[in-house]
Amino acid sequence: MPKISDEQKAERREHVLAGARRCFARYGYEGATVIRLEQEIGLSRGAIFNWFPTKEDLFLELATRDNDRINAIWLEHGLEATVRAILEEDPDWLGVYLDLVHRLRTDPSFRERWDRRRPKEQENRIAARMHDEQAAGELRSDLEPEQIGSFLGVIFDGMAVQRAAGYNPPVEVLLQLIGDALRPVKARTRARRSA
Amino acid sequence: MPKISDEQKAERREHVLAGARRCFARYGYEGATVIRLEQEIGLSRGAIFNWFPTKEDLFLELATRDNDRINAIWLEHGLEATVRAILEEDPDWLGVYLDLVHRLRTDPSFRERWDRRRPKEQENRIAARMHDEQAAGELRSDLEPEQIGSFLGVIFDGMAVQRAAGYNPPVEVLLQLIGDALRPVKARTRARRSA
Repeated sequence: MPKISDEQKAERREHVLAGARRCFARYGYEGATVIRLEQEIGLSRGAIFNWFPTKEDLFLELATRDNDRINAIWLEHGLEATVRAILEEDPDWLGVYLDLVHRLRTDPSFRERWDRRRPKEQENRIAARMHDEQAAGELRSDLEPEQIGSFLGVIFDGMAVQRAAGYNPPVEVLLQLIGDALRPVKARTRARRSA
Repeated sequence: MPKISDEQKAERREHVLAGARRCFARYGYEGATVIRLEQEIGLSRGAIFNWFPTKEDLFLELATRDNDRINAIWLEHGLEATVRAILEEDPDWLGVYLDLVHRLRTDPSFRERWDRRRPKEQENRIAARMHDEQAAGELRSDLEPEQIGSFLGVIFDGMAVQRAAGYNPPVEVLLQLIGDALRPVKARTRARRSA
């Protein structure tokens, strides 16, 4: 049996993930049956589940990548770029997350796997960044970064719902109101006075 | 055939709706089959669909009532009470809305029926209330009430996702940040200074 290089292995894995993403987006999580996954990926179930043992593993890997990408945008380009990136996401793909919301609450093993996949390292870096911004007077310092993160998490989830429902929340209004909610008092007052 | 009074009719209609709500919450929108609706409501499909011709009609009537109730809370008790009321909603029932998000974007006839059911009269009263608050200097006046409503709509949808997923967003933090986002500059500065 011919050996394949690590590079080839990585390529095949990517191929499986890209097809699975299309399949989930097209049919929803429940609708992405093994037969449809085979068709969309172009490989047999044996080949697919060699890389990812279950459909849940496929989804969790794709969600982990989304998290990594969104957090990387935040760390590199800031909150505004993050908001814009979420609003530009494929509505069909965002809908797949909504398919799994109920399961997150009612299936403890899925919930545990989901929580374990959270990108702790990146989240710590974002919290550290927020602390720096608080010290520099760029971010309100009367709340913990974790509390500010909870507020933003609600807004991100709400944006996902609206996009998946086919609405386009007004991005400039969102950015202005999020900015005003998070700006420290002094900077906020200065900004308005000089306007 | 004995005639039933208007009161009895209204009672039966309420009975059907209450059972349908339990059934949707328990099984999700798709999972609420005709057989399960019959079991939960305790009436035959003929009797149920005499009141509401389709499952979609049942759901739309329940959603209309939610809208009416939430808007009435807003008009009577203000935004803070509204946020608390949404966070206290049954997570299973909130999940039913998420089941239908995709359909809202991809099924034009459902979308049209959904939009037509919006409580325009109440929404106009809420917008008029916001205009009054802007004139009284209690609400920022650099944005239209409709824009502020879009922002709040994103937050309400995000709260629904988090509750349906089994998370409890920190209500006091949410209220503080929403309040700071919407307060006019002068009131905001005064509030902080006197704190």
